[in-house]
Formats: sequence, C-alpha cells, structure tokens
Amino acid sequence: MDRDQFKTAAHAAIDDIIDYFDGLPSQRVIPTIEPGYLRPQIPDVPPEEGEEWAAIQADVESKIKPGLTHWQSPNFMAFFPASVTYPSILGEMYSATFTAPAFNWLCSPACTELETIVMDWMAMALGLPGCFKSDSPNGGGGVIQNTASDAVATMMVVARERRVREQALAEGLVEGSPEFEDRLMDLRPRLVALGSDQTHSSTAKGALIAGTRYRSVAARLEDNMEMTGDRLRAVLERCEADRLTPYFITFSMGTTNTCAVDRFAELKAVLREKPAWQRIWVHIDAAYAGAALVAEEYRAIANEFADGVDSFNMNMHKWLLVNFDASCLFVRKRTDLTSALDITPAYLRNHYSDTGSVIDYRNWSMSLGRRFRALKIWFVLRSYGLSGLRAHIRNTVRLGEVFADLVRGRSDLFEIITRPAFALTVFRVKKDNAPTVSEESNALTRDVYELVNSRGEIFITSSVVAGVYAIRVVSANAQAEEVYIRRAFDILVKAVEEIQNNHRID
Amino acid sequence: MDRDQFKTAAHAAIDDIIDYFDGLPSQRVIPTIEPGYLRPQIPDVPPEEGEEWAAIQADVESKIKPGLTHWQSPNFMAFFPASVTYPSILGEMYSATFTAPAFNWLCSPACTELETIVMDWMAMALGLPGCFKSDSPNGGGGVIQNTASDAVATMMVVARERRVREQALAEGLVEGSPEFEDRLMDLRPRLVALGSDQTHSSTAKGALIAGTRYRSVAARLEDNMEMTGDRLRAVLERCEADRLTPYFITFSMGTTNTCAVDRFAELKAVLREKPAWQRIWVHIDAAYAGAALVAEEYRAIANEFADGVDSFNMNMHKWLLVNFDASCLFVRKRTDLTSALDITPAYLRNHYSDTGSVIDYRNWSMSLGRRFRALKIWFVLRSYGLSGLRAHIRNTVRLGEVFADLVRGRSDLFEIITRPAFALTVFRVKKDNAPTVSEESNALTRDVYELVNSRGEIFITSSVVAGVYAIRVVSANAQAEEVYIRRAFDILVKAVEEIQNNHRID
Repeated sequence: MDRDQFKTAAHAAIDDIIDYFDGLPSQRVIPTIEPGYLRPQIPDVPPEEGEEWAAIQADVESKIKPGLTHWQSPNFMAFFPASVTYPSILGEMYSATFTAPAFNWLCSPACTELETIVMDWMAMALGLPGCFKSDSPNGGGGVIQNTASDAVATMMVVARERRVREQALAEGLVEGSPEFEDRLMDLRPRLVALGSDQTHSSTAKGALIAGTRYRSVAARLEDNMEMTGDRLRAVLERCEADRLTPYFITFSMGTTNTCAVDRFAELKAVLREKPAWQRIWVHIDAAYAGAALVAEEYRAIANEFADGVDSFNMNMHKWLLVNFDASCLFVRKRTDLTSALDITPAYLRNHYSDTGSVIDYRNWSMSLGRRFRALKIWFVLRSYGLSGLRAHIRNTVRLGEVFADLVRGRSDLFEIITRPAFALTVFRVKKDNAPTVSEESNALTRDVYELVNSRGEIFITSSVVAGVYAIRVVSANAQAEEVYIRRAFDILVKAVEEIQNNHRID
Repeated sequence: MDRDQFKTAAHAAIDDIIDYFDGLPSQRVIPTIEPGYLRPQIPDVPPEEGEEWAAIQADVESKIKPGLTHWQSPNFMAFFPASVTYPSILGEMYSATFTAPAFNWLCSPACTELETIVMDWMAMALGLPGCFKSDSPNGGGGVIQNTASDAVATMMVVARERRVREQALAEGLVEGSPEFEDRLMDLRPRLVALGSDQTHSSTAKGALIAGTRYRSVAARLEDNMEMTGDRLRAVLERCEADRLTPYFITFSMGTTNTCAVDRFAELKAVLREKPAWQRIWVHIDAAYAGAALVAEEYRAIANEFADGVDSFNMNMHKWLLVNFDASCLFVRKRTDLTSALDITPAYLRNHYSDTGSVIDYRNWSMSLGRRFRALKIWFVLRSYGLSGLRAHIRNTVRLGEVFADLVRGRSDLFEIITRPAFALTVFRVKKDNAPTVSEESNALTRDVYELVNSRGEIFITSSVVAGVYAIRVVSANAQAEEVYIRRAFDILVKAVEEIQNNHRID
C-alpha cells in the first residue's frame, strides 16, 4: 500500500468510522451471531498474494461488524463503560505512526516526557494529593499501564519485593549474597495479600501471579458492601494467628459489583495500630469511579490518599473518554518500582539512563516495550478541557440518578440493593411473598435479566450481592442520553410484566 | 469534536502521517533535544476549556516530532526494528473505533474469533508444527500478548503453577484444601528458571515477577554464543546438587546481542535424559528472528518445535510490518494457561463462557481487558500476502549480507565477532597490537560507536559479547534500502579513520 493508496483507504475508513458512530443508536447492542460464526467466512489459510484495501474494508463491514458488541451504543449499560471519542482515535493514529517500543528515554524522548507531563496533569485533574506528582519531594509519579489488572499485579510484585527485602536487610543479610536470596525465598510463602470480597478479581489474580496467598475481608449489606475497619482488623488478626504476613491490600473506590467505596479513614486507622500493619502496601483501585474525581463534589475522597496510601489507579478508558488502553497508575515512591523491576542489560544502557537524568518507564511495569499512549490522553484532555470532562461525569451521574428514581418509583416491582453511586444502580425484581434472599426471588430477577439481554435492545449485567441476585445498570459512555435510560427502564418493566403474566398463566 | 470536525481533523492527520513517512530519509534519526526538553513547552496545568484540533496538531508538529527517535527511518539500525506500515495504521483506527475491553467472548465476539483465526494463520505462515493451532488434538492455540516480556512472564507463572500443582497432586493432596495451598508455597522457593546468559533480560525479569530463582547457562564465543547441550546439563546438575528444581527454560531463536540460535536438538536431548528434566517447561523466544520463518529457507528450524516445546513467541511488531503491540504467543496446551490463570467472578460469567463453547482470552494472559489487535494483523497479512512478507524478510536479510560483506572487505579496520544472521552484523573495531579482548580494543570500538551515534546520521547499538565491546548493525524496517546500509558503512569507516587520526595527533 503506497502513500496514495493509503490516503484513499484512510479517507474511506474515516467515513466508515463516522458512519459507525452515527449508526449506533439504531443497531442492536449485542450481536445475534452464535459462537464460531466467523470461521466459515474466512479462508482457512492466509493469502499468498496481497489484496486490495477495498476487499478488506468490505469484509470489515460484512464479517466483523456483525460480530461486535457495541460498547459505544447508547443502549450499552453493562459492566462499566469503555469509551472512545474522536480525539482519542486521532491519538491512536499518531501513536501508530510514531511506533517505537519506548522502553527507555532515548528510544523516543517525546513518548517518555509527554507521559510524565500528562500523568502530572491527570494527578491535578483528579485532585490527587501532591505526593503522586513527578516533582513531589517523596519521589512519586504516574505511569500508563495496560489495564487495572496489570497495575495491581505490578504493585503486588513490587510490594512483595519491598517487604521481603526490608526484612532480609533488617536481619543484616547482604543484598546479592546466596543467603539473601535464600531468605527472600523463605519469607515469600508466608506473605498474604488482602482485599474485600467485593474487590475486583484482579487482586486475587495478582496474588496468584506474584505467587503469594490471598485472603478477603467479607463485606456486609448493612455496610453498603463497603470494607470496614472492624472487619479488616479481624482478618489481620486471623492472619497473624496463622503466622501469615499481610503485605498488600487493595481498597476500592467503586467496587465492580455495586460501586461501593471502602471506608478509607477507618481502614487506615486500623493499619496504623501495629508496626507490622503499617508496612502493608495500600493500593487504591479506583478503576472506574476514580474518573469522578475530576468533579469538585467528589474531591473529599482524594484527600484520604494524602497519607497511608502507596499507589492509586484509575482507568481513563472506562469513564473518561480515552479508548482502551489508558490505565493511570500513581505511586508515592517510584524507587519502590525501580528497585524491584530494574534488570538492565548492556544493550539497554545509555548515557542518559545511566546518569539517572531521565525516566525509563520499562522499570515501572512488567512489559519492556510500550506504546505512545500519552498522545491520546493529551488529545482528549485538550479537546474536552477539564470543564468538558466534568460535564461528562456530571451528565452521566445525573442519568444514573434519573434511572434510580425510576426504579424507586416502581417499588411494587423493584428493590434497590445498595446505594446508587457513580451512575450505577443495583436492584432486584421483587417476588410476592418470597424473602429477599431466596432461590425464588433470585430466579425471577435472573429470568428478567436473561430475557432483556436475549432481546439485545439494551445490554445489562447481573451479579450476586450478599446472596441477592441483582441487575446492574450503568449508562455512562460518550453516547449516553436520558431518552435511552428511560427506554431501558421501560424495557425492564415490560420484561417483568411479561414474566409475571406468564407465571400467572402457568 | 463532532463528526464534521473529526473528518476535517482526521484528513489533516492523514496528510501529516504521509508527510511524516515521506520525510524520514532526510530527518536526523535521533533527536537533538536534551532530557527535559518538553516540560517548558507544555502548560503546567491541564486546560480548563477545550481547544481546537488545529492547535493540538500544530503542537504535535512543533513539540512532539522534535523529540521522536525515528524507528521508521531507513537510517535506524539499532536494537531490532519496530515496524509500522499503512495497513497496520488502518488496523489501529478500526481497533480504536470498535473499542471494547474484550475480556470474554460475549464482550466482542468478532474480537475473540478473529484473534483465534489470525493466530492460526500465523502458525501456518511461520510453518509452526500443527500442535500450536487451535484445532490441534492436543488443544494448543495462539494468543496476542503485549510484548515478548509479558509472554515469557506469563509462561513462567503458568509453568510454576503446573509444576507445583503436579507435585502436590502426586502427593495425594486435595486441590483447594489448606494443605494443598501450604504445599504449593513450600515447593515454590526451590523452583529455578533457566536461560543462557544471552537470553533476553525478560526471562530474568519474568523469574522475578513469578517470584522464583533464575540461573543462566554461559554461552561461549567458540559456540557462536549458542546455548549447547553440555553446558545446559552442567547447570541442571548443579541445580540438583543445590536441591533446586528447574521448572522453566527459555531457548532463543535469535538472541538480542548476536541473533544466535540455541542448539534446540541437543538441548532437547539433554532434557529427555531424566524424568524431572522432562517436566521443565520449554519456551522458545523468537521475538525478532521468528519472523524469518515465513521464508521456506528457515523452515527447518520450526521442525524442532514439533515436540519438547511448550510455548513459542514471536513479535510481528519487530520484523513483520505490524506496529507495536502484536506479540504472537503459541502454546501446546491451552488448559495449562487457563487452569493457572482463570479466576472467574460472577460478573464475568455468561452462558457461552460457562459451557466452554468459546475462548475467553482473559484467561490466556495477565491482563483482563485487551485491545482488538487481530485487526491490524489481519490487515497486514491480507495487504502484503505471504509473498509480500517473504519478500520483506529476504530483502532485509540480503541488506544484512551486503553490510557483512562490506565489513569483511575492510578486515584492516573491523572484525566480525559472531556469524551474521537475520540481517544483524556484530563486529568490533581493530586496534593495532592490542588483543581482541582488552580494555584498549574495547575503548576504540566504544569511541567509534559513540561518535557515530552522537552525530545522529544513523542510529546503532552496542553490546558486550564474551568480553568484547561490539557494535550491532541491523537495518530491517519497512524503509530499509541498500543505499542507506552502504552509507552507514561509509559513516563507520570515516569515524574509525577520524578517531585513529586524532589518536595519532595526540
């Protein structure tokens, strides 16, 4: 494909992209295809000779689009949003053009330096305490990770290394000696990572990757599914009784199930109670809800991170209009990362890195190479401005409130399970005469959920919260509008009525 | 940015992208800026109000481009190439548009299904044994990873879990019991991962992430820096003497320093010698050189992977014209991955995943979410065809041979250190009367290397091979041409002469 062919192809692709977004409201949000739909439509072997772009683009239309779940549809109300906007697409175009596996500064200085700058911008945009900025006296800073899962796994590896090295050094062992390595190995099997039972599964997966144990703190419905200090203390004490060393804990700002915010102040107070507990790495997982911090009314939450927190993570690629992947991880002390992850061979050395005058982000993550993702973040921050981001958050929070009010208005049909928050409403369908937590009640909610999704007019998710089968509705992508959330409510009501009528007929 | 603004902006960006590629030959390959160049040019705080695209695009031109290292320049001959081509950029445009964190099949069936298909295409394109295809009786398959580093770290975690679980189950312990978990923890500290001292540093970093030990097998210059069977056996026996359990080994097809290919047949023969060694996970790291397998003349290498190999990895984003990231990882038995990495919470369950009728790639990698990277691979495979990919490999291998011949032709100035391979030449500058391995010889080569890079006409890398300071030259991106490699040689000769003359004057 030469320059002229590319120009023609790219112009056609751009028309296609615009048409795609324009057509979303009238598209079914979940595809109708069945598993294995694509294989019969694609040749069994790769082509021997090159093909024209027109043939490829036609296949995108006829073979790929019918198999897409449309996360950008205004009828997508499942999971959490995964947004993309036009400036973000422009960022990906330039990022691909400037391809460099920017594993150190010299490999593409602009890539590294813009990342440091936009991460500082993000720390300010979110109102994070100054300790997470690159110019903080404590040596903090931000780095773009692939996903919140990578971020938490990386933090656990770093926390594991910090903990066992501290201990081995305190015992007078010499770093690099065989005794030192043996001691690290002896210490690791007793380490245990913690979260609540509402913490995203990536913390348990991170513990598995790091090769450490994992225990969870049970959250209660009467606490709105938030992790509380008393519950945490009980688990810490049980760990001690079992001769385990808690070394890492995830606190959630907006759990996946219900958008609960753990009780940071009282949790941190518990961790201050014992010297060993003060050494636990505290990670804030704000993957989705962290985006709300751009709005002043949520700022008080970030004040809790000024002390007693080692790392904070939020994904712009959920609620903040940058396409996947753009996971923003901030650490209080960047040398925690680099002393755990820096393995510098000769061919990666250069004058600038050796003298420490530059950041080499490869030592801030598990991957060596990295894409130029700062561009799309820069483009979105500049295109929207902070006022535009705030407007998006506030508008979608309001849509969530509209939906929650609709649910409350039909208390004959529905019951809200946890406090609606960050545009998410979690509720169940009421079953006459059946207790809230019962197989009968759960089955009815599940039937409604499955009927609605099977029709594909809207896409929602379900979960089980303290034994209650619940439906989750959240509409917060860039295409979200009140008309769609009201229609979604009508679809749900209709589904309940249909199932109830069917049951009466049975 | 509305649809019309996007259309205007995207057209301008496309012109900009074409101009960028057109202008590469006349650009300095390494930027002239110093660390910290960007910060003073960017506002200290993110903008409150949104800005026009024209202002953003102007800043890309004036602030970002001056800080880029141009990996696509025909004068880029450092590290290994990191290619991008026009069809690949189109792939990124559609991928961003169809944004979905496709962590399971239902989240975007096309994303999952196209990945399975193009990974099968790649297995065929590379002539890999059938065991790595998704329809193999052994249940193999391919998955796109971010980088070769992620691939190796993931394989080590999976290998670690396979090994300790096998052992605990063999001892009659019950999976899920506290005794089972305790036993896994007891076993892990004795595990050791292996590679040669030429293996890419990501294997050592992977061992660190997995929390296991790492030992390396020393390669010798007389073996062309290839890992040999006798050397491996000696290290395995030493591990046993130290009561360590080797559980993972990386064999390299094309080491980073010199593109050496480890002696697969004799290494595998050594691993067959003892039952415990037969259980070691064998990973082939072919990150760069694996691309050559598209050409029939390299196919014999892949025959070695038909047995005794658990996983194989190559990066299309190095030599195979797809932009970063497109790391292709193939495993012989996909349940090894899923039994180690599957942690499925309620909110990620759905009918299709539960019945096992679909692939959920989140259980094939450390990250939960993933981008739609199969598109760009599909676009490039179709745009070039296998014949186009082969032509690119053969053309750049030929350029490497041209360069090596030029070096050989000036045996008064240069000495080739290891056998040139896969377009890479590794050589030193000769110092009169000084032995090959000496401070004096090394200093001269380093001086030449630093002088050349400081001028920025070409970009090359250096390394230390068996005590010899060496220069690496490889020109294999999509813009590579003979005229540039010949010019590079002239630049090197001139630098040697300048330094020799200066020394004589001193």
